Amino acid sequence: MLHLMPTHLKEIALNTDDSNSIPTIITLAEVPEFAHGYVRDVQVRWALEEAGRPYHVRLIKRADQDTPAYRQLQLFGQVPVYQEGDLTLFESAAIVHHIGSTSAALMPQDAAGRSRALSWMFAAYSSLEPHVHAFNEVKKLDDSERRSSLKAKLEGRLSALDKELTGRDYLLEQFSAADILMTAILRYSNLVPQFPALLAYLQRCMARPAFQKALADHLASFAAPA
Amino acid sequence: MLHLMPTHLKEIALNTDDSNSIPTIITLAEVPEFAHGYVRDVQVRWALEEAGRPYHVRLIKRADQDTPAYRQLQLFGQVPVYQEGDLTLFESAAIVHHIGSTSAALMPQDAAGRSRALSWMFAAYSSLEPHVHAFNEVKKLDDSERRSSLKAKLEGRLSALDKELTGRDYLLEQFSAADILMTAILRYSNLVPQFPALLAYLQRCMARPAFQKALADHLASFAAPA
Repeated sequence: MLHLMPTHLKEIALNTDDSNSIPTIITLAEVPEFAHGYVRDVQVRWALEEAGRPYHVRLIKRADQDTPAYRQLQLFGQVPVYQEGDLTLFESAAIVHHIGSTSAALMPQDAAGRSRALSWMFAAYSSLEPHVHAFNEVKKLDDSERRSSLKAKLEGRLSALDKELTGRDYLLEQFSAADILMTAILRYSNLVPQFPALLAYLQRCMARPAFQKALADHLASFAAPA
Repeated sequence: MLHLMPTHLKEIALNTDDSNSIPTIITLAEVPEFAHGYVRDVQVRWALEEAGRPYHVRLIKRADQDTPAYRQLQLFGQVPVYQEGDLTLFESAAIVHHIGSTSAALMPQDAAGRSRALSWMFAAYSSLEPHVHAFNEVKKLDDSERRSSLKAKLEGRLSALDKELTGRDYLLEQFSAADILMTAILRYSNLVPQFPALLAYLQRCMARPAFQKALADHLASFAAPA
C-alpha cells in the first residue's frame, strides 16, 4: 500500500465524518509558484463543491510521484488521484465525470444529455487544451512564423467557442461538469479577453461560489507546512 | 439543416435498414495520403464493429468543414460527427464512450468499472496523445535539445504504459472502449517498438477482426469517387 502521509504533510479534512463514502483527493503539496491555482485538483474540488459533497485531501511531495507505490495508483505519476471506498480513479476529467454521474448539479439526467456533456469534456481536454499549451510554450520562443501559426490555430478554436457561447450561459442548457473542464482550460490562455462571449462565460463560471471555494482551498494547500 | 451530400460524394450504407436506430458517421471523403488510416472515424467504426452494430457513413469534403451548417454540428469543424436519431455527438472519444454505454463488449457493466474505463480514455487522449504529437512534430526540426526533451517525455509515458501492460492483455480486465482509444493514439508513434509489452498490446488490439474491418472500410472511403 501507498505510504502517502508523512507527518510533516498536512491533511485537510473538510469533514469530520471518516466513512468510506467521503472521497479523498491526492494532490501535490508543492508546485512551482506559477502553477498555484492551476493544478488539476482544482477541477475535482470544484465538482465536489458543486455537488455539495465533503472530501478529504492528501498532499504528497513531488518525490512521491515517482515511487512504485504511487505509480501503482497513477501510471504516469500525475495528480490528482481520487479514492472513494475501494475505487481509485485517475485523470481529472474522468474523476469529474464520475462525480457528475451521481449529481444532477453536474450532469444531465438523461442518457443523451450525458453523452453531449462528454462531447464537451473531450472537446476541452483533447481539442482545445493542446492548442493552448502549444501556443503558450512557443510564445516564449523567438520563432515568429511558428508563433503566428499556433496563435492563429488557437484563435480559430477560441473564436468558434465564442460563437457557440454567444447568447448562452453554459455549454449545455444548464451548468454541468463540461463547464468545469472548459473553464479549467480557458484559464490557461491569455487570448480569451479577445472574445467577449468567451470572456463573459469564463468570468461567469469562475464567479460561481463552488469554484471560488475550490480555488481558495487549493491555494491554502500551498501555505507553509505546519 | 446541413446539406451534407452533394451527389458527387459517395455514401457507404453498410446496412439497408434506414431506421433511426442505425447511426451515421460523418467523416471526410478526402484527406492527405499520410492521414489515410488515421482519421478519427476509425475509432468510431471500430467501436461499432465490436458492438456488432450496423452504421451509415456520410462523406463530406474538406470545404464543407467550414460551412456554417457543419459548424452547427461541430464547432471546430472537426470529424467525425455521429448522429443517432435526434442525438448529434462530436469528439471521437465521447462517441466511442456513448456506443460503449450500451454494449457489454465495450464497457464494464458496473459503475466503478465504467469510471475506470473513462480514466483510461482520458489518459489516452489527454495525457498521452499531446506528447506523441509534440514529439512527432519536433522530430522534423533540427533543434536537437528540444527533440531530446520531448522524446524523453514521450518515452517516459510509453515506458509507464509498457509496465502497466506487462502480463495483461488489455487496460481493463477485458477488452473495452479504452483499448480503442489507446490503440488509436499508439498507432501514431514510431517509438512503440522499443517497448515489448506495449508493442504486443498494440498488435493484439490491431489484430482484432473488428479493427481490421473498421480500418478496411475507412480506407475504402478514400477510393476514387464514383
